[in-house]
Amino acid sequence: MSYKIPFNKPHITSKETEYILQAVESGKISGDGMFTKKCHDFFEKRYGFQKCLLTTSCTDALEMAAILINIKPGDEVIMPSYTFVSTANAFVLRGASIVFCDSRPDHPGMDEEKIEELITAKTKAIVPVHYAGVACDMDKIMKLANQYRLFVVEDAAQAIDSYYTFPDGTRKALGGIGHLAAFSFHETKNLQCGEGGMLVINDPQFNNRAEIIREKGTNRSAFFRGEVDKYGWVDVGSSFLPSELNAAFLFAQLESLDVIQEGRKRIWTFYYDNLKKADKAGIKMPVLPKYATNNFHMFYVLCKSLEQRSLLINKLKSSDILSVFHYQSLHKSSFWEIENKVYELNNSDFYSDSLLRLPFYFTLSESDQNLIVNTILDSLNLSD
Amino acid sequence: MSYKIPFNKPHITSKETEYILQAVESGKISGDGMFTKKCHDFFEKRYGFQKCLLTTSCTDALEMAAILINIKPGDEVIMPSYTFVSTANAFVLRGASIVFCDSRPDHPGMDEEKIEELITAKTKAIVPVHYAGVACDMDKIMKLANQYRLFVVEDAAQAIDSYYTFPDGTRKALGGIGHLAAFSFHETKNLQCGEGGMLVINDPQFNNRAEIIREKGTNRSAFFRGEVDKYGWVDVGSSFLPSELNAAFLFAQLESLDVIQEGRKRIWTFYYDNLKKADKAGIKMPVLPKYATNNFHMFYVLCKSLEQRSLLINKLKSSDILSVFHYQSLHKSSFWEIENKVYELNNSDFYSDSLLRLPFYFTLSESDQNLIVNTILDSLNLSD
Repeated sequence: MSYKIPFNKPHITSKETEYILQAVESGKISGDGMFTKKCHDFFEKRYGFQKCLLTTSCTDALEMAAILINIKPGDEVIMPSYTFVSTANAFVLRGASIVFCDSRPDHPGMDEEKIEELITAKTKAIVPVHYAGVACDMDKIMKLANQYRLFVVEDAAQAIDSYYTFPDGTRKALGGIGHLAAFSFHETKNLQCGEGGMLVINDPQFNNRAEIIREKGTNRSAFFRGEVDKYGWVDVGSSFLPSELNAAFLFAQLESLDVIQEGRKRIWTFYYDNLKKADKAGIKMPVLPKYATNNFHMFYVLCKSLEQRSLLINKLKSSDILSVFHYQSLHKSSFWEIENKVYELNNSDFYSDSLLRLPFYFTLSESDQNLIVNTILDSLNLSD
Repeated sequence: MSYKIPFNKPHITSKETEYILQAVESGKISGDGMFTKKCHDFFEKRYGFQKCLLTTSCTDALEMAAILINIKPGDEVIMPSYTFVSTANAFVLRGASIVFCDSRPDHPGMDEEKIEELITAKTKAIVPVHYAGVACDMDKIMKLANQYRLFVVEDAAQAIDSYYTFPDGTRKALGGIGHLAAFSFHETKNLQCGEGGMLVINDPQFNNRAEIIREKGTNRSAFFRGEVDKYGWVDVGSSFLPSELNAAFLFAQLESLDVIQEGRKRIWTFYYDNLKKADKAGIKMPVLPKYATNNFHMFYVLCKSLEQRSLLINKLKSSDILSVFHYQSLHKSSFWEIENKVYELNNSDFYSDSLLRLPFYFTLSESDQNLIVNTILDSLNLSD
């Protein structure tokens, strides 16, 4: 089914196909060619990440993280229930037991105050998810991790070009704070290449092994740098590296990052300014904690109930506009039922039922946004 | 380092970038869009595969296979030692113990006569690798699998457009015989999209779960077909599906398959006809068992010794030509040392030391081939 105003549209900035042709002409379209290198350099310089490795998806970056921190059967990993399945599956695939934390009352991110009570002797890692690109309280999370000697893997799928300010005023890019972090360049993200992701390594102890794991468990990268005489099978691993086709496409987007972000800011602000009055119908606008920045990844509202959300989705549909809900609490999934662990995570369930995402893409026009806003206000009997 | 005649060059047939632009204009560049569907349809129709699913790599297709046949710690999987690390790692990641089989005396494929003695009560699967696109003796392998109730996963990375003829005269495409099969569309393959692969499912018992595992462990595909009311987390899984950018690129190549194969046949035949005389220096040409076809994936010769091979590689290098050896026996890798299982696999070691791959790509010219052939014959003092 297609809509006059879809939920998402991928976009081309200008040079995507030109760069793809350059990759073909360079004689290399498999992974780790010149465009992959350009992307790595861009992210490392712009955000101060210690080391970046493009992957075929954010899922794959999370799987690399799970291998790197040596997750074994029985290890516990704490994460929000209100997240994408891959946050959990990446660790389940290595045998981890997932321990779910509730969301914050004011924001879908995990409630930092509820993490400590979930830590046991088996806990190996905390995986904060920066929902909508809005930072979790990383100061609190990193302090807990230091205290209990845990790894922190930031699920920064939605969080490119967003920042966290520590209590002492230091500002760091999201994805640059935990030991490891995973980004997504899926077509719904600010920067995109269809399917794609990136592992960020902030703790250099993981640098060498990350290269090996990404190269199918071989020391091929060290070989090409002349550090070893021959290369071979030295570890587990997979083919986590993306094609140069994807890296070339992504690099064109990086060059337009500021333009993209400016456009997304305009779209986000228009929604925010024009939908504020929906609070009269019990609808809440997104909240930005003072330590966080907005990267304009998505625009969502919180309906007062599942019924209200369904009403809005249906009204928008009848105007040929696709709006969508987002995650369903993972602790309520049928996969989780077999674990037989009962959770009561009321905030997570609230976001499952009430969060509504509106169409959001770089080329969304103001007239289309006007139609969306008016349809919502009409449905709530709030039109001027 | 780049060479005047490299070992490989990717190629564009004609429509690759046009199709990529079409994908962007269609509003979908993430996975499972119209080009992925076109690729699936093409392969299913042309080769009679029951169900095809594009993946981000052949490695990922093998990992899907390992999950689908429920590999658990302790399960044994039989495969050749002369293969790519991913053949093994895909199963090692699920906890399997790898059992290595020697290669045939006449061909790098696994020796079908040596499989049965490796089967134990713990054996779960046999993974034949169709080296250079040349079939393993699938009749023998499938009979063993039936007798001992084992799964067969064909590693068909190099084997697109190649066939096996059963003793009764039935001919089947490689990848269409085992329960599951994995193909590669890496830039060195006949059909390419930089990095890419495909899982082929010949046993329909795996159809539903394969879709779920590929969609991050969710029943999203069934949801979009209207088979379930809502979708959620139902299984383990990963993000195995490639971007439409890659599928669009690949589909352009599929449309040119016959042209590509014709070109590769010409290149292969030129090498074969002009290098036959190297037998005077103890160099052997590739052998094609009578049940197999040639898909012209690569051209290799077997040198009489490691020394002779090194001589040829160096002589070619000094003429600015890159030739390469291939796999090192996995049972001799440093990763395998920790297993403390000693193998004597003389044929596998022979191919590790003696097999030499010559430059092979669609746009390789006859004059370049002449230079390669003459450099080899000169080095062996066999020039006319």
